[in-house]
Amino acid sequence: MAVYTHLTAAELAEFVGQYDVGALRSAKGIAEGISNSNWLIETAHSGASRRFIMTVFEARTEAADLPFFLHLLDHLADAGQPVPRTIHTSDGGQMITVRGKPAALIEFLPGVSIDEPDAQQAHAVGVALADLHLATRDFSPTRTSTLSIPTCIAMLRTYADRFDEIDPELAQILPDCGAGLLDEWPDALPEGTIHADLFPDNVLFVDGVVTGMIDFYFACTGTLAFDVAVTHAAWSFAPTDGAFRPEIAKALMSGYQTHRSLSDAERAALPILAQAACLRFVATRVEDWFATPADGLVRRKDPMEFARRLAFYRERGEAPFA
Amino acid sequence: MAVYTHLTAAELAEFVGQYDVGALRSAKGIAEGISNSNWLIETAHSGASRRFIMTVFEARTEAADLPFFLHLLDHLADAGQPVPRTIHTSDGGQMITVRGKPAALIEFLPGVSIDEPDAQQAHAVGVALADLHLATRDFSPTRTSTLSIPTCIAMLRTYADRFDEIDPELAQILPDCGAGLLDEWPDALPEGTIHADLFPDNVLFVDGVVTGMIDFYFACTGTLAFDVAVTHAAWSFAPTDGAFRPEIAKALMSGYQTHRSLSDAERAALPILAQAACLRFVATRVEDWFATPADGLVRRKDPMEFARRLAFYRERGEAPFA
Repeated sequence: MAVYTHLTAAELAEFVGQYDVGALRSAKGIAEGISNSNWLIETAHSGASRRFIMTVFEARTEAADLPFFLHLLDHLADAGQPVPRTIHTSDGGQMITVRGKPAALIEFLPGVSIDEPDAQQAHAVGVALADLHLATRDFSPTRTSTLSIPTCIAMLRTYADRFDEIDPELAQILPDCGAGLLDEWPDALPEGTIHADLFPDNVLFVDGVVTGMIDFYFACTGTLAFDVAVTHAAWSFAPTDGAFRPEIAKALMSGYQTHRSLSDAERAALPILAQAACLRFVATRVEDWFATPADGLVRRKDPMEFARRLAFYRERGEAPFA
Repeated sequence: MAVYTHLTAAELAEFVGQYDVGALRSAKGIAEGISNSNWLIETAHSGASRRFIMTVFEARTEAADLPFFLHLLDHLADAGQPVPRTIHTSDGGQMITVRGKPAALIEFLPGVSIDEPDAQQAHAVGVALADLHLATRDFSPTRTSTLSIPTCIAMLRTYADRFDEIDPELAQILPDCGAGLLDEWPDALPEGTIHADLFPDNVLFVDGVVTGMIDFYFACTGTLAFDVAVTHAAWSFAPTDGAFRPEIAKALMSGYQTHRSLSDAERAALPILAQAACLRFVATRVEDWFATPADGLVRRKDPMEFARRLAFYRERGEAPFA
């Protein structure tokens, strides 16, 4: 949520000059995305003003993965999905190098992300997620997640003896760092390309309509119902007090199934998948917690937020998905 | 350089709804300005897209001073100067309240700020500064600077016994915290409304033309030649190694005097005024230094940068202004 790479005006102009988008007119560093540097770029092209997002990928994004992410954006945009299309350089490339780091220019999409969705918005995001799953059935590139559940369990084990520094409840919620989830792991569920991080900040709306799904930099090949579970865990709790919002969960599930039906096996797996989704966010937040000084300057995301959601899903079984 | 206040989509829409600018289409938190929260806002109005900057003023900006700053913007814009005009609410106000903080909507101006200006750009900013001084001759509101030189000396005295923690050279450059400057202080120089902080980040250019002067939140009533000295100190040194760039200084002085001649008394005072300008930035940077933890997360601006410029001006007399 910051601009990590500082670029001079000359570097920005050189960057934009590699694309056939007109002359640079404005570049504002924006507080978007968690770990990359982003600018809202404006150009003048044949008298018209055009806007783009320029991203410089920082260390957390593997350069080798970028072709997957960028091809996915174009594939989805070609299929009419509300995702930003990549802009290609004058010689056809999707990626360039800025200060030795990979960088890309993508479409700017209108819309505002919602903090506390209403049922109509939750329904719309459910539909959009199903459409994303359907539109990638013919997307052949694959990418293995770097945050598989065994990896997340291993990440947590590194810090297990320091859980009390975060909250004494954490160790109680996560006996054996959540490894028990693997025993109940469902197999043979439908796979495909998943967003894997469709939080409210990554969805743009105008008048209740989804105008953008953004930040595909965790997208990977995976279990489609896991993506539903991630989205369920990310949207169905009040941002203020963390209370479960059944009407939002219901609207999300109903929206998704308007365009893609979940099989009985997928439905049955949702309670475990939702716990796994929570575990994934607990794991990265625990890691960030111990990597970030507690001086109040950088807001560390609280690992307990998703630990409590994990406990909720464990206790409530299939009810939250009805 | 951050968004300090987080606003929900509903709050953003309510904010924009107080203005007759159309419906909110996008809001991106931008890394602009030092101490306020800023968003680049896009609206749709009668089918056309319009862009604005929304600012929520944080603690460092005195709410009582805002009418001065905002009236100044409109006065300058009316006079044809390249500054953002304020947008008035449907009932004519320039300022509203968001989360108990004062906030304003201003025009978005195109342009990119330059890190290392060339002589043409320095000449253009000199002209723009002179025009700003001329255009405010009929601006009657006044504001006393909160960073007068006696105040800056007092700020420095608070930390004088800790100067060595920054750099052993600092105490040598600033005997008695720079109080000697007051003995040589020129009087009866022309006064007016000054920007007082016209650093390269606060000037936008398109194709070598100044398209915007921004961030007027240090503007005050003061000595016009002091504003020239501030701008000289801010523009005439290489950002990389701090070396004096005589061709930039020359172009700046020449640009300014194309539109407003400096009197002999003003010219004679420039060496002292430039040292005072440097002292002002040393003072706030020293204060920030001791208020900001040295953990590498927030980049503290180095007080030595302007301490060395102060020493340079003391040694070189009138030469840098020739």
